[in-house]
Amino acid sequence: MKRIAIDMDGVMANVAAKFVAYHNQTMATQITEKDVEGMSELEAFPIFNDWLNTEGFFRHLPLMADSQAVVEALNQKYEVFIVSAANEFPKSLIDKHAWLQEYFPFISWRQMVFCGSKTIVQADIMIDDHFKNLDYFDGQTLLFTAHHNALTSAGRHTRVNSWAEIAEILL
Amino acid sequence: MKRIAIDMDGVMANVAAKFVAYHNQTMATQITEKDVEGMSELEAFPIFNDWLNTEGFFRHLPLMADSQAVVEALNQKYEVFIVSAANEFPKSLIDKHAWLQEYFPFISWRQMVFCGSKTIVQADIMIDDHFKNLDYFDGQTLLFTAHHNALTSAGRHTRVNSWAEIAEILL
Repeated sequence: MKRIAIDMDGVMANVAAKFVAYHNQTMATQITEKDVEGMSELEAFPIFNDWLNTEGFFRHLPLMADSQAVVEALNQKYEVFIVSAANEFPKSLIDKHAWLQEYFPFISWRQMVFCGSKTIVQADIMIDDHFKNLDYFDGQTLLFTAHHNALTSAGRHTRVNSWAEIAEILL
Repeated sequence: MKRIAIDMDGVMANVAAKFVAYHNQTMATQITEKDVEGMSELEAFPIFNDWLNTEGFFRHLPLMADSQAVVEALNQKYEVFIVSAANEFPKSLIDKHAWLQEYFPFISWRQMVFCGSKTIVQADIMIDDHFKNLDYFDGQTLLFTAHHNALTSAGRHTRVNSWAEIAEILL
């Protein structure tokens, strides 16, 4: 059974939607995700590190469309691990654990990995929205489209724009 | 540079010493670690799962002797990751992160991994006190002596009784 390492933020959880909402709320703007296309998270949301350090920020992130159904189907066919680079923001740890338990109850604690660098991950397939994670991974790589990677060539990675596209490739 | 995955509980942190202290406190006994030699954690400490689910339990664990100095030296010579199977007890996550930051400040968040199953870990060397982790690991394995493994043959793993012995082998 092949093993898949699935990222949380920007892949299972629509963190950009929450960034945009926070930005509009705190800066009294009316930007959309389209407005930050091609910008890094720091360029688009200059104080996003403060948000990430806030208890509760990761507890109520919106789901990426179709993520629940497709991850549940993948979990039947593959050995699924959810791998999140959470340790830079320790207050996120318990929020992320609780979020997974609420929205992905079929994922057990045995399948969760909260790390810093993802170079330690041993798997066959990685789904992630960041080149810094995919570029160091030896196996099959799916780049999930996000504002910060949308205008960059996917290079050796396969770009996917939705969970429906992931299902087509992996199911 | 070779990569080492180092376990926390029973290797860097002397969790058995705290279990014994809690046992004596809550049951009005006077047992020592010697009294539980050969017993699993559940046999030795029947309600230890309740303790592990308590906020703060992992925040003030005593250090294993010489662990700070030897891990610091290993951190110069190897790519060190601290890998703890913490996700069964989500309240432990922030405590473990804070404990590492306090006692091992030279370990960055990038080097911390909080997981469930350790089968996902890719490294050259693993130091752990549990066969369930070492047995699935392909590289060099050091079994750190603990009450629950003390009377069992180390099998293909190299038994170490102290951080001084680890230093002799790896430094």
